[in-house]
Amino acid sequence: MRGRLIALEGIDGCGKSTQARLLAQWIGEPNVALTSEPGATSLGMRLRQLLLDSASPGVSARAEALLIAADRADHVSEVIAPALADGRWVVSDRYSGSTLAYQGYGRGLDLDTLRQLVTFATGGLEADLNVLVDVPLEVARARLKRADADRFERLDESFHQRVRDGYTTIAASDPRWVVVDGTGTVDEVAKQVSAAISERLGPLPASAR
Amino acid sequence: MRGRLIALEGIDGCGKSTQARLLAQWIGEPNVALTSEPGATSLGMRLRQLLLDSASPGVSARAEALLIAADRADHVSEVIAPALADGRWVVSDRYSGSTLAYQGYGRGLDLDTLRQLVTFATGGLEADLNVLVDVPLEVARARLKRADADRFERLDESFHQRVRDGYTTIAASDPRWVVVDGTGTVDEVAKQVSAAISERLGPLPASAR
Repeated sequence: MRGRLIALEGIDGCGKSTQARLLAQWIGEPNVALTSEPGATSLGMRLRQLLLDSASPGVSARAEALLIAADRADHVSEVIAPALADGRWVVSDRYSGSTLAYQGYGRGLDLDTLRQLVTFATGGLEADLNVLVDVPLEVARARLKRADADRFERLDESFHQRVRDGYTTIAASDPRWVVVDGTGTVDEVAKQVSAAISERLGPLPASAR
Repeated sequence: MRGRLIALEGIDGCGKSTQARLLAQWIGEPNVALTSEPGATSLGMRLRQLLLDSASPGVSARAEALLIAADRADHVSEVIAPALADGRWVVSDRYSGSTLAYQGYGRGLDLDTLRQLVTFATGGLEADLNVLVDVPLEVARARLKRADADRFERLDESFHQRVRDGYTTIAASDPRWVVVDGTGTVDEVAKQVSAAISERLGPLPASAR
């Protein structure tokens, strides 16, 4: 039986990476694959470095979207599709929704064109459920204590506000999205996430193997 | 006055790089910019290395097409568009036609989807003239004497035959393409190229500045 693909989405500092890890633990080995974008494959790691590299400030919005799409194409073919075919549930920290939110709402690229790009990159593989871990910008910023802010994190406040608003707009219009309030404690948010998974996707894969 | 964009196209070993150089000399400094894909920008050089890297044999056709598109997006925004805006004529060793021939006809990706991808990457900037330097596969192979064959050049004969046939199909159906017989001497081919430019694009930029 084919596995399910669950994407954790949200702005930097919303807590989705922590939640992705907890969700994977909750689903349980060996039936789960925890992964992330960008940089899940060897090609992806090199692309991630390109994207984050402070030495490449001139990368245009279009080139950036294409690099991220290339990372996703490799991610799907090397990691996600094989795990799903193996019956495992895949938990990905970011997936196609990030492109719509960041490159679309954030950078202003055309959403329909980005949807075509995403479809090309993924071969049409969509997440069975996208979980938006939603927090106000202030909360995210307060949580981000990294010393070396990378390129994305150095982007201005209005950019991140557009991304957050974009996420909520996408989630409101697509039944494969669920919004979780990310302002609580890690455990509180994790309970909401697992409850949403149970409600939307039914029994966990352990029972299917 | 906006410059013109001329793309030299053809299979590896057809002689287009030599012809691009000679064409740029013929047009003459300072009114010309000679460039190439992939790898014309600093981002592009890193992407070219990714593409050629023998350590990345698993790059899927879709990821490859996206990396090449990212290179082209950066090439357009950093090199081609500024040169054209400056009134210069741009001679590019490969441009969008290579994606259709290699990733489309060669690797079998959908041509309409690739056209959308190319349009996204270039922002719709098309070559004013594409010059196909056409040679039979045997001629190209005989010319290729490089010791370290890269990934593209190691691809099989049938692949390159599909690419060559793809080029001639594209050229036959698009008025912005011209086919030049690449089997003659360098000077013979160069004369055909410059004659095609004169006929199709009119007076050289020197007179326009």
